[in-house]
Amino acid sequence: MDQTLMGFAESLRGLSMPELRKDPIVGRWVIIATDRARRPVAPPSEPFPIGAGVCPFCEGNEVHTPHEILAYRRPNTRPDEKGWRVRVVPNKFPALQIEGGLSKRGDGIYDQMNGVGAHEVILECPFHEASLTQLPVENIREILWVYRDRLVDLKKDSRFVYGMVFKNVGPAAGASLEHSHSQLIVTPIVPINVIEEMSGSLDFFNYRGRCIYCDMVHQELTGEKRVVLDTPNFLAFCPYAARFPFETWILPKHHNSHYENIQKIEVDEFGVVLKTILMKLEIALSKPAYNYIIHTSPFDTQALPHYHWHMEIIPRLTRVAGFEWGTGFYINPVPPEQAAGFLREIEVDVSGGRVE
Amino acid sequence: MDQTLMGFAESLRGLSMPELRKDPIVGRWVIIATDRARRPVAPPSEPFPIGAGVCPFCEGNEVHTPHEILAYRRPNTRPDEKGWRVRVVPNKFPALQIEGGLSKRGDGIYDQMNGVGAHEVILECPFHEASLTQLPVENIREILWVYRDRLVDLKKDSRFVYGMVFKNVGPAAGASLEHSHSQLIVTPIVPINVIEEMSGSLDFFNYRGRCIYCDMVHQELTGEKRVVLDTPNFLAFCPYAARFPFETWILPKHHNSHYENIQKIEVDEFGVVLKTILMKLEIALSKPAYNYIIHTSPFDTQALPHYHWHMEIIPRLTRVAGFEWGTGFYINPVPPEQAAGFLREIEVDVSGGRVE
Repeated sequence: MDQTLMGFAESLRGLSMPELRKDPIVGRWVIIATDRARRPVAPPSEPFPIGAGVCPFCEGNEVHTPHEILAYRRPNTRPDEKGWRVRVVPNKFPALQIEGGLSKRGDGIYDQMNGVGAHEVILECPFHEASLTQLPVENIREILWVYRDRLVDLKKDSRFVYGMVFKNVGPAAGASLEHSHSQLIVTPIVPINVIEEMSGSLDFFNYRGRCIYCDMVHQELTGEKRVVLDTPNFLAFCPYAARFPFETWILPKHHNSHYENIQKIEVDEFGVVLKTILMKLEIALSKPAYNYIIHTSPFDTQALPHYHWHMEIIPRLTRVAGFEWGTGFYINPVPPEQAAGFLREIEVDVSGGRVE
Repeated sequence: MDQTLMGFAESLRGLSMPELRKDPIVGRWVIIATDRARRPVAPPSEPFPIGAGVCPFCEGNEVHTPHEILAYRRPNTRPDEKGWRVRVVPNKFPALQIEGGLSKRGDGIYDQMNGVGAHEVILECPFHEASLTQLPVENIREILWVYRDRLVDLKKDSRFVYGMVFKNVGPAAGASLEHSHSQLIVTPIVPINVIEEMSGSLDFFNYRGRCIYCDMVHQELTGEKRVVLDTPNFLAFCPYAARFPFETWILPKHHNSHYENIQKIEVDEFGVVLKTILMKLEIALSKPAYNYIIHTSPFDTQALPHYHWHMEIIPRLTRVAGFEWGTGFYINPVPPEQAAGFLREIEVDVSGGRVE
């Protein structure tokens, strides 16, 4: 966000509760959250100001975050003090607020509701590392397990229907702090992109009687040309219709619609797969800015035969321009077969990692 | 696009014809176009290298572009020579290619076709200006009219079903050259975002018997709080569910589904409205990067009672991060009522402009 906008946002008054508004034409919801304009952000074009001020995510600075919700810590250490390995806190500048009712209401042709939801930050390590790949695999497994723990807890709240786990790395990917972290946003409505995935995969299931993601795993393993990594329980590949150069998806091979139903043995393997893929991308693209996002099923559904949780990793190398905004058509200059071939060749060693 | 990617793309061989691929889950099409990776681009974080090399869009440098398709020029001047005011040429690094058949085919669960289409560049002035607002209103009217002329011509080709006119200003909006220009991409399939707008507005029409955009004009004029500019034939306003700070839409007040059916008298007024809105945004946001996009109906439809062409202007002040990619939920820190109020107050004078 640039200085002009920051200044303008500072002058805003009156909207304390975030508001959810629905576009009446396509049904997309938007969060109007004026508090977000006040958060500290690095200008998108500059690297993070390392060492400039106190990092609120470092061990010893627990006082600079809201009270922790959950942490995996050494025995005999106390909440909001040192001794944690992974720590979850509310976002200090939340897009949605945890308190209050939904209060759905109309305004002529428009629809709105209160911006009720959860917005949490997962601090991935106590020390100031910018990359998840600097951590031992064991710590990455704990981070993946903490995602599960938070989803299991939040889905008990009947106001909420969807939980989205995501990670922004680098200013070009929208990250505002360097210290390695991910986020969880829980919403009172199912987001439109999720509805589209659910509906498209249900159409396929009704027509073919199979999960389209399972079919995709099968076809990719047969062809192999887009495969980046194949392990007993996971497949990482560059998708056939990749929107972005080096876009990579990780799918569990065994059908499971809800990420929070993941088993411990799968998380152990997922930790290795994720670290491997991120290391390959960092080498291939010189530590790119990237996002990863876990796509999973809504809270209010039971096990679904047509949907399959997965993680999408998107390096942010190209800008999305007017054409993409207008059409939803993406222009990708790197065929996924070429990207996968390149990533496949890169050898990495996942055994190291910083421990303090 | 960063240097690593440029280098990688340089090494690509074999895919000369762009390819259209369909995501089997949500039905979104992607253009895989390796030639695009070779185009010269300014790094996103730096301003354009002014004066570094020859600008292919300046008068006198016509030899550096492909042959012109159309130009409005002084009497007795010849194509591809000096004397033009607005000039249309094929994009030198096209996302889609004009020659060839569609050749639709499957590959297991995947679908593809040849990347056939048109990709044209509209050079908006003969001299090196970065902003449309530096031009007299009369020239802006000619640019808006040239959009119409090209759509009318391209819709005669039965391979094509959609034409998207858009403009990228500034590196943060995806522009690769500074000289003021816009683009037209014509596709052999209707883009997914357009399908969603068509389908959403048709649902409304079937339920209420009215065009939702006409209803929106009516409601905005009644409330006034989101109105930026109200003229006899056009309304400019910040939409209720704005995804981005200062997002502004321009709608014709009289129902018309197809931009190419615009009348001369409307273009005259639209030129004034567009210049006014862009000048207001430049003052409010210190010459921001932005995109504008004309949303219109597919070529293969007659006049539609439920759809209404319009222009969406999106200043690019915030980064789209992982959450937005994953969900299609946008977080906007500036309420559209505040943005509209701010823009409404700014006085501008559209009477000037560079003429050479």
